[in-house]
Amino acid sequence: MASVRLARKHGYSWTKAQGLRAGVPSIGVIEPPSNVKSTDTVYDVIVVGAGYCGLTAARDASLAGLKVLLLEARDRIGGRSWSSNIEGYPYEMGGTWVYWGQANVWREIARYGMQDELEISYDFSRGINKYLLSTPQGVQTFSHEEEDALMQSSLAKLVNVDGCHGRTVVPFPHSGVLSPEARKYDHMSVADRIAEIKNDLTPNERLCAEAFVLLCSGGTLETTSFYEFLHWWALSGYSYEGCIDYLVKYKFRGGQSSFAIRFFREALASGNLSYSFNSPVATVQHGGESVQITTRAGKIFRGTKMICAIPLNVLNDVKFDPPLATGRKAAATTGHVNQCVKVHAEISDRDLRSFTGISYPHNGLIYGFGDGTTPAGNTHVVAFGGQHNHFHPEENVEHTKAAFEGFAPMNIERLVFHNWSKDEFAKGAWFFPAPGLISTHLKDMRARECNIVFACSDWALGWRSFIDGAIEEGTRAAITVRADFAGRSKL
Amino acid sequence: MASVRLARKHGYSWTKAQGLRAGVPSIGVIEPPSNVKSTDTVYDVIVVGAGYCGLTAARDASLAGLKVLLLEARDRIGGRSWSSNIEGYPYEMGGTWVYWGQANVWREIARYGMQDELEISYDFSRGINKYLLSTPQGVQTFSHEEEDALMQSSLAKLVNVDGCHGRTVVPFPHSGVLSPEARKYDHMSVADRIAEIKNDLTPNERLCAEAFVLLCSGGTLETTSFYEFLHWWALSGYSYEGCIDYLVKYKFRGGQSSFAIRFFREALASGNLSYSFNSPVATVQHGGESVQITTRAGKIFRGTKMICAIPLNVLNDVKFDPPLATGRKAAATTGHVNQCVKVHAEISDRDLRSFTGISYPHNGLIYGFGDGTTPAGNTHVVAFGGQHNHFHPEENVEHTKAAFEGFAPMNIERLVFHNWSKDEFAKGAWFFPAPGLISTHLKDMRARECNIVFACSDWALGWRSFIDGAIEEGTRAAITVRADFAGRSKL
Repeated sequence: MASVRLARKHGYSWTKAQGLRAGVPSIGVIEPPSNVKSTDTVYDVIVVGAGYCGLTAARDASLAGLKVLLLEARDRIGGRSWSSNIEGYPYEMGGTWVYWGQANVWREIARYGMQDELEISYDFSRGINKYLLSTPQGVQTFSHEEEDALMQSSLAKLVNVDGCHGRTVVPFPHSGVLSPEARKYDHMSVADRIAEIKNDLTPNERLCAEAFVLLCSGGTLETTSFYEFLHWWALSGYSYEGCIDYLVKYKFRGGQSSFAIRFFREALASGNLSYSFNSPVATVQHGGESVQITTRAGKIFRGTKMICAIPLNVLNDVKFDPPLATGRKAAATTGHVNQCVKVHAEISDRDLRSFTGISYPHNGLIYGFGDGTTPAGNTHVVAFGGQHNHFHPEENVEHTKAAFEGFAPMNIERLVFHNWSKDEFAKGAWFFPAPGLISTHLKDMRARECNIVFACSDWALGWRSFIDGAIEEGTRAAITVRADFAGRSKL
Repeated sequence: MASVRLARKHGYSWTKAQGLRAGVPSIGVIEPPSNVKSTDTVYDVIVVGAGYCGLTAARDASLAGLKVLLLEARDRIGGRSWSSNIEGYPYEMGGTWVYWGQANVWREIARYGMQDELEISYDFSRGINKYLLSTPQGVQTFSHEEEDALMQSSLAKLVNVDGCHGRTVVPFPHSGVLSPEARKYDHMSVADRIAEIKNDLTPNERLCAEAFVLLCSGGTLETTSFYEFLHWWALSGYSYEGCIDYLVKYKFRGGQSSFAIRFFREALASGNLSYSFNSPVATVQHGGESVQITTRAGKIFRGTKMICAIPLNVLNDVKFDPPLATGRKAAATTGHVNQCVKVHAEISDRDLRSFTGISYPHNGLIYGFGDGTTPAGNTHVVAFGGQHNHFHPEENVEHTKAAFEGFAPMNIERLVFHNWSKDEFAKGAWFFPAPGLISTHLKDMRARECNIVFACSDWALGWRSFIDGAIEEGTRAAITVRADFAGRSKL
C-alpha cells in the first residue's frame, strides 16, 4: 500500500470549514526525502527532474546497471502530473487521462499490469445530462449527441486546410520532420486561422472551436501555434471523437501518482538508484569529462553524464557553465505559453455528474465537466482556464467559485488545485508553443550538449506535452546514455 | 550495415530462369549461429524462441544484468515475422505492418529512433487504380472510395450486435477480462454470425465481409471465433478505416527484419546474451530448483528460469517433464486455425500497382493488392489465402500463378513465400482461435508453471497474434523473471 503524505508546494484545498489551505496529501510524496549517504560518489548519470521523463530515465538507467542519482526540486515525484489524495479520493492536480493509443504510456500500463485500473471520466446517465454553452448572452442547452456534432463540425472546419482535415499537413504525427506546409501553419496562430474561416463558422461553431483550442493550449488564440493544434488533432486520429478518446476519457482509478510511483519503486528496487528530493539545482558545470551539479543549498554532486529533464520554462533559472547552446537558450527565453488554470470542485449537486460545459469568452474557467463521484456521494467537477481571463485561484476563492458557477449554479463544498503559473519549478502547465517555436527550435531543444542529454515532454516528437511524451523522452535519454557507456563496460 | 545471408527453412522463391528454389536470403540470419562456449554454465534464464517475444524477453533480461541464453530452432530471428532480401528489396514472409496505435511496437520504434523508416503499402495513383471483386460470375470494378464504403457497410453490419458496432461487447480491447456477452460471441463462429444477418447483407457486402474475415483469420468461416474478430475490430478503433490504418498500411522500408535485428543486437551488446540457433528443443525438465533443456541434437543447457516462447501449435512437440498443466496441454492440442497462405509476386505490369482485389469464394488466394515497386521498376503484389481452398504454393507453381491471375491478368516474373503450414516450428501463421478457445483457455495459456514463464503473442491480451502482442508478452516475461531474482541479488 502506498502511503499518503502532505505535498507542500503549490497545491491548495479550500472548504467552508477549513478555509484555504496550502499543501495537499499525495501518495507521490517520497519519504525519507533522500537516500544519499555520501557526496563523494561519482554517479554514472545524474537525472535532474522526477516527472515521468526523469522517472523513466532513472528507472531504465538503473535497471541497466548504471549508478543513478535522481535529483528533484520538489518533495514528490510526477512533476507537472500528480494526483492528490483527499478523503480517499484522487484529484488530478495536473495530467489526468491516458489512452491505449498513446504508445509509451500504454506500454508501461501493460508492463505494470494496470490495464484494468482505468475508469471513464464521463458518466452520461443522469440529472442534467446536457451540454451547457454559456455566453454573455445566456445559456444554450444541448444533448451530448448535439455536442459531439457541433464540436466535430467546428473542429473539422478549423483544421480543414487541405480538404483532408489536416491529414496532408501532419501525415505522420510521430515524426519530427515538418513539411514546408507544416512550418507555414506553425507560423500562424489559431487567431490567424479563425480570421481566415470566420465567415464559414456559425457563432456556436466559433465558440466551440475557440474554447476547445484554449482547453488544449492554455494560452490565448493569438499565442497558440495553429500547427501544434493540428499536431494534437493528427495524434488523436483526425477526429473529434478521437480527441475525446485520447485526451479526456480514461484515467487511473487510483490517480496518476499510483502509476508514477511504480516507476520510482522499480528503479529503487534495482539497488542502483540514489535520490534526493527538495533539492533544486542551482548550477551545472559540464565542460570536462564529467558533470558537477550544485544545489541551491550548496550540496555538490558529480556524475559522468547528466540527463536534464528540467522543463523549458524554468531551464534558464539554472546556471549552466559553459552556458547553454544559443538555440536552446533562445527557446527557453521564449518559453511556452500554457498558463492553464485547472481547478476541481466537490459539489453537493448530484444532478451535475453528467454535464459538460463551455463558458466563454467572459468566464475565467472555459471548459468544465463532471469528472467523478466522491466517496461522500458528491459530484466532482473539473474545470480549465488559461491565459485567457487568467486568474490565480487561491487569491480570491469567491472569484474561483464564481467561475465554476459560470457553467451552472452549484453548491461548492471543496476546491482543490495546483497553481502552475506560480510554481517556480514549472512556470506553467503542459508545454504549448506560440507560433514559430517548434519550427525554429525543436531541433535545438532536442540536441545534446557534451555530457548532458536534454529530455522532456516539452520537446518529445509524438505526444509532446503529454505523459506519453515524457516517457518517450525518458526512454530516449536512458538509451542514449547507456550507449555512451557501452564501450566502457559490459553494458 | 546488416549482412544478408540465406535462410534455409520454409522460404521459397521462383523465377522462370531459376525455377523453384528453397531458401531465401535475409538480414535476420545470424552468423555465427552460436556464441556458446561452455555447456557448464547455469544461466539465469533460458529463453526458447527468437521471435519478437523471445527477442524482447532476452533483450530486457540481459539488459537487466541477467545471464541469458537464447535458443532458437531456426537459423534466423523473427519467428513468424521476417523479411527476405532479394535483389535489394524486402519481401515480408510473415508479419508486415505496424502502426503507432500499437503501443508495444511503437514504443520500440520510437526507442530505436525508427519513426521515419516506415512507408505506406498503398499507392493509389495510377494504372488500374481500382478495387476488383472477382467471383465465379465475373469481375466487378469499383473505385477505392466505393471499396471503402462497401467494406465499411459490410463490416459494420457484421459487428453490429449491440447497436454500437461492438463497443459494448469489447469496450476495453486491452483487458483480458471477457464479459458474459463476449464469451457468448466467442462460442459463435463467423459462419454463425453470417447466418444471423444474411438477409441484411447485399451479395457484395457478404462477399466483402467474408473475404475480410478470412484475411484476418486464415481459417474458414466455421473455424473463426466471432469474438476474436470483434476483438481485432475493437483494437482497430471500431471502424474499417481503423482496420486499414492498424492492419495493412505502414511497413518498414527495410523490412521487418531490420527492426527485429535491433533487439538482437542490443541484447548482444549487453554482454549478457549467449545464443544458439539451429537448436530445436526436444525436452524440458523443470521439476526442481532449475530447468534443464535438451535439444534434438542432445545438447544440454541449464537455467534457473525459463521463458518459453514456443507457439501454441507446436508446444506439444516439446516434451515437458513434469508434463504441461492440463489446460495448457488441451489448448495446445486444440491449437489455432490460421493456415494463412501469403505469397508475393513481382510482376512486370506496372499498371497494377494501385489495384486491390478480392477473389472469392472460388480462388486459392482471396485478398491481394499492390504492395510496392521493386528496384527493377516492377510491381510487387502480395496476396493471402488460408484454410479456405488451402494450397501449398511450392507444390504447383502454375496453380499458384493461376491464383494470382484470379485477381487480374498479370505477367509474373517472380514468386516469394514461406510455407507456414509445413513449417514444423510454426504449424500455421499468426494465432487465430476457433470458437471457444479464448474463453476456455486464455488464462491457462498465460499461467506460469514453477520456473517457466510462458510468453507468446498467441496469448497476449491486446494485439494478440501481432508483433505488438509478442513484444507485450516478452516484456511481461522479462519483468516477471526479474522480479523472481529481485530478492536474491541487487537486481
